[in-house]
Amino acid sequence: MKAVRVHEYGRRLSVDEVGEPAIGGPLDVLVRVGAAGLCRTDLHIVEGQWAEKSGVRLPYVIGHENAGWVREVGSAVTNVAPGDAVILHPFVTCGLCRPCRSGDDVHCENSKFPGIDTDGGMAELLLTNARSVVKLADGLEPAAVAALADAGLTAYHAVRKAVPLLYPGTTCVVIGAGGLGHIGIQCLLAMTATRVVVIDPNEKARELAQQLGAHEVRADGDGLEDSAHVVLDFVGEQGAERAGPAMTRRAGSYYVIGYGGSIDIPTIDLISTERNIVGNLVGSYNELAELMTLAAQGSVTLHTRTYPLSAVNEAMDDLAAGRLQGRGILVP
Amino acid sequence: MKAVRVHEYGRRLSVDEVGEPAIGGPLDVLVRVGAAGLCRTDLHIVEGQWAEKSGVRLPYVIGHENAGWVREVGSAVTNVAPGDAVILHPFVTCGLCRPCRSGDDVHCENSKFPGIDTDGGMAELLLTNARSVVKLADGLEPAAVAALADAGLTAYHAVRKAVPLLYPGTTCVVIGAGGLGHIGIQCLLAMTATRVVVIDPNEKARELAQQLGAHEVRADGDGLEDSAHVVLDFVGEQGAERAGPAMTRRAGSYYVIGYGGSIDIPTIDLISTERNIVGNLVGSYNELAELMTLAAQGSVTLHTRTYPLSAVNEAMDDLAAGRLQGRGILVP
Amino acid sequence: MKAVRVHEYGRRLSVDEVGEPAIGGPLDVLVRVGAAGLCRTDLHIVEGQWAEKSGVRLPYVIGHENAGWVREVGSAVTNVAPGDAVILHPFVTCGLCRPCRSGDDVHCENSKFPGIDTDGGMAELLLTNARSVVKLADGLEPAAVAALADAGLTAYHAVRKAVPLLYPGTTCVVIGAGGLGHIGIQCLLAMTATRVVVIDPNEKARELAQQLGAHEVRADGDGLEDSAHVVLDFVGEQGAERAGPAMTRRAGSYYVIGYGGSIDIPTIDLISTERNIVGNLVGSYNELAELMTLAAQGSVTLHTRTYPLSAVNEAMDDLAAGRLQGRGILVP
Amino acid sequence: MKAVRVHEYGRRLSVDEVGEPAIGGPLDVLVRVGAAGLCRTDLHIVEGQWAEKSGVRLPYVIGHENAGWVREVGSAVTNVAPGDAVILHPFVTCGLCRPCRSGDDVHCENSKFPGIDTDGGMAELLLTNARSVVKLADGLEPAAVAALADAGLTAYHAVRKAVPLLYPGTTCVVIGAGGLGHIGIQCLLAMTATRVVVIDPNEKARELAQQLGAHEVRADGDGLEDSAHVVLDFVGEQGAERAGPAMTRRAGSYYVIGYGGSIDIPTIDLISTERNIVGNLVGSYNELAELMTLAAQGSVTLHTRTYPLSAVNEAMDDLAAGRLQGRGILVP
Repeated sequence: MKAVRVHEYGRRLSVDEVGEPAIGGPLDVLVRVGAAGLCRTDLHIVEGQWAEKSGVRLPYVIGHENAGWVREVGSAVTNVAPGDAVILHPFVTCGLCRPCRSGDDVHCENSKFPGIDTDGGMAELLLTNARSVVKLADGLEPAAVAALADAGLTAYHAVRKAVPLLYPGTTCVVIGAGGLGHIGIQCLLAMTATRVVVIDPNEKARELAQQLGAHEVRADGDGLEDSAHVVLDFVGEQGAERAGPAMTRRAGSYYVIGYGGSIDIPTIDLISTERNIVGNLVGSYNELAELMTLAAQGSVTLHTRTYPLSAVNEAMDDLAAGRLQGRGILVP
Repeated sequence: MKAVRVHEYGRRLSVDEVGEPAIGGPLDVLVRVGAAGLCRTDLHIVEGQWAEKSGVRLPYVIGHENAGWVREVGSAVTNVAPGDAVILHPFVTCGLCRPCRSGDDVHCENSKFPGIDTDGGMAELLLTNARSVVKLADGLEPAAVAALADAGLTAYHAVRKAVPLLYPGTTCVVIGAGGLGHIGIQCLLAMTATRVVVIDPNEKARELAQQLGAHEVRADGDGLEDSAHVVLDFVGEQGAERAGPAMTRRAGSYYVIGYGGSIDIPTIDLISTERNIVGNLVGSYNELAELMTLAAQGSVTLHTRTYPLSAVNEAMDDLAAGRLQGRGILVP
Repeated sequence: MKAVRVHEYGRRLSVDEVGEPAIGGPLDVLVRVGAAGLCRTDLHIVEGQWAEKSGVRLPYVIGHENAGWVREVGSAVTNVAPGDAVILHPFVTCGLCRPCRSGDDVHCENSKFPGIDTDGGMAELLLTNARSVVKLADGLEPAAVAALADAGLTAYHAVRKAVPLLYPGTTCVVIGAGGLGHIGIQCLLAMTATRVVVIDPNEKARELAQQLGAHEVRADGDGLEDSAHVVLDFVGEQGAERAGPAMTRRAGSYYVIGYGGSIDIPTIDLISTERNIVGNLVGSYNELAELMTLAAQGSVTLHTRTYPLSAVNEAMDDLAAGRLQGRGILVP
Repeated sequence: MKAVRVHEYGRRLSVDEVGEPAIGGPLDVLVRVGAAGLCRTDLHIVEGQWAEKSGVRLPYVIGHENAGWVREVGSAVTNVAPGDAVILHPFVTCGLCRPCRSGDDVHCENSKFPGIDTDGGMAELLLTNARSVVKLADGLEPAAVAALADAGLTAYHAVRKAVPLLYPGTTCVVIGAGGLGHIGIQCLLAMTATRVVVIDPNEKARELAQQLGAHEVRADGDGLEDSAHVVLDFVGEQGAERAGPAMTRRAGSYYVIGYGGSIDIPTIDLISTERNIVGNLVGSYNELAELMTLAAQGSVTLHTRTYPLSAVNEAMDDLAAGRLQGRGILVP
């Protein structure tokens, strides 16, 4: 089969002919990939930023935002059958550790992360397991939802955690209306009656936020100090990580979703107004299923641009150069 | 009446003869002070550290941990009557803003803080209001509980917020077994079945933690990285604010209670393990009433040393020099 | 002033000329009534059903859904000023008991209920207190929102309690799309992404539910057994109280809001599927403020028909005979 | 191997020589039974009360409270190894449905219940799966903890759900201090600071409750109306199901755990005081692990009497006749 592989950090990706993966264990699921989302993390992988953290051996197949159709299942798989359209939770989890038994999939003590530390989905076939596959409702196409598998799920998870804080009359500031942020805005509008204030220096991003229904859209956060019950920071660097906490009001919460910068805050500022800083990491399998409900209802939609698998480097270039409006999707 | 006043920052306190405060408004309550706790914040006030923040006009009466007996009440007061023994919530709140209407007294939008920004309780009489007075159960003496009004309430509040996270099998690290910490330990043991690990470099503090029933007591946190579901940091400076977050495990929470230092943490460390940093500020009126229940049950006790009001400077010297084991209490 | 009074149970209401109420206590607020909602409870009062329960002495003024403008305030009132447009929380609460200090206004241990156990709002003036008045945003008129004070608040409160259970993919069955139910539907749509299934035998009610955006509208609950994560029962009698619990699925919750019937359920049915039955009573002051936010946003609107105060008996007749589409509002 | 089997409803149990079960699937776990608890449900099974509900084919092996040692594991089992001491969660769950993915094991959509609807643990060997086995800490013996698998877990689960309601100053009424109730009392004392009031007509049960540390022990509930924040009803029949709800105070909750009777309550009584009725069903895998922590800490202990497997009918007779103090345990 064809697969996009990293052979050496710092060099362009290669579209190789490789052997097909095969069902090994009883819970294995082999998926014919319908769409693989392209993500800034893929740029970072190629640059070598993840080399040490993932410990993966080269060459390997990248791609961690995947959807497709089940081709074959292991002997103990009961939740999907060949032919089913599915989206894949990014983690392959064990199902037996305490976090798995609590529904906290991302904290599984024995998980794999295809596309990061094992072969991923920029290929014709992807091997995963029964615990990763969410069956798609009729009418949802893999290419339309693939980017919700990771970027979308991360935004949804943060919003869902914040819902109890966002009763009518509250203000939620969203920093960044890009790939994750524009999904977060849609989730907020679908699940709460909070006032949504969006900050993005990019004019196209602001236009999109406006179209999606944000209540206020701004190029910067001037004057928003002490104003928000919740700040959802989809950037987490370049100053957002300093401005964000300062936008929360007394007893408010700053949700870190994007990353890159460092938080530096005197303890007296946290205690004198009782603010919180909340980490966020992807989301659970059930949350991905919930997000698919929002997609099926039409409450969450994505702007995408598709490329054939063979055009992966062109797509990477477009992403790196900022020429890609919406999410890039590879279709094998 | 006699009252301890600050006349000039940087100079010793003065025990003055001043006019008695009088009931003015319908919800006012005049309390005969039975005990006023001494706190490190009192040292800081005298040093002038709070001058700008409080904006108080000198001279004024300090003392913000108070208990005593009701002497007189305003026309609309229904919850206490003259002669009742009471402990005083540190804030005098309005009762009409949204936080007050939610039970979040410390976030009242119109509060006063006697002993900080208006006349406090190191005096024979203290003027407060009906919303601050918690009636004491029979058997609880003002001198025995006064220090629970602020130090105790702050420790209790943080523990109570953490209770849902501390199911059997979890680990809670307590940094600092001093004035607040030793109350926090007692609250944890009374309200949860978590394993309590206490860190304090001071040997006497460690002995006390051991006697109170902590499951493990240590001089430092070496080897505790990634071990705790919750860290309660009663120090918040001198390195605790750096070591504390690192002791939380995946999805763990670091509670800031003490203050002084600065938190400096890369956003990637917060998101990659989904950790939280939780600010804590005193506690609510209802929580003070709950803490009084623990005190009445004998689940929370305090080590105190009493001084007459006239010995306030001696008490301050003992506190500053570290000669004061337990909490210093002034008895007018 | 003119006021609608009950002189004798079982007889028609009387529009009397009575003395004006006057500010007595420091927290009193005197309101010029702009609108008083008409409620089935008013029919029951006149019939004498509440005689024993309320213990009120005749004659007295009815009307417990009120909005208007502040005319005069007591000496300690800081949250409203003469001229302010306000809606009135139905209870006049003490502010000092534990429930009040927790924001659970309806469980105040010393409350009054104007229009039920003391003089109410079908009059030119109504005496209440500072804890009952919620200031209206510009653009909200007393006549447009008065019926949200009680009927609306009750529906909102039940929905808000259910929000954490109603994640995307869940089903919420609403029994009854009348006065309360049609507000509940709007609150569900504004605050959740749950699928809303409405049951009402009345065709006009079903049409309204459809217009409001319910996802499914039905004349009866046939086939809905074991289907709902949450059932909101705005009827609570005439069979709804038997059918409702049976519509919940495993681990589901049946919210009782309407009343009249009796729940009769074997304990084995509650434990074998772990179902819950949840009582609901009006709502808090803060919840009324939140509902006013939804009203100001246009997310919750009411169908009303206004009558002059002198036409109260005509309005009562219309209500009793089912001739009143939407809520009847008396305008003094 | 030897196994206790039901051959015909209404007849005595038979100790048979049967074939050994064998590992079939990849997640199977074969356990050498160390102890099987005896339960009133076993009496009901033999009487035929469960015949229709379970649909099990006779003859089959009963016993649903089991602990022992792992003998063999399937190819995909990673959480236990041969030789490990384990206690068994009563349900064998699928791990793939939404409830399983949420940690709500008892609501698994594809579960088996060994001892009820398939072969159970009154035998030398029991076949279960990896999702059911909780590894025991050193020092915990199967015979000492087996009865916690079902009775203990059910009590623990109800208490854990109630913990957030049971802050200091609250009252929790426990109806029944028998097999489940006496564990519930220990859990309450270990995990909360609530005041525990126990009702049991049996003098020996009251003595036990007293020894365990209940704050008040009574033969009946006279005078407890409207007194409890939470009522835990471990009886659920013979009048408890009527008295229990009436003991809750405003906004209180009645937890149904025992069963047999019927709840009959006017909807107006639920709404006028906003009371709740909460169903409870066994508990999750993680909760069983938590309960093992309490057992290992010595916070929860059981009174047991052991019998050899061959004496099962004698043990059943003792249980039926009320001659069995504590829990009966069969040791193969």
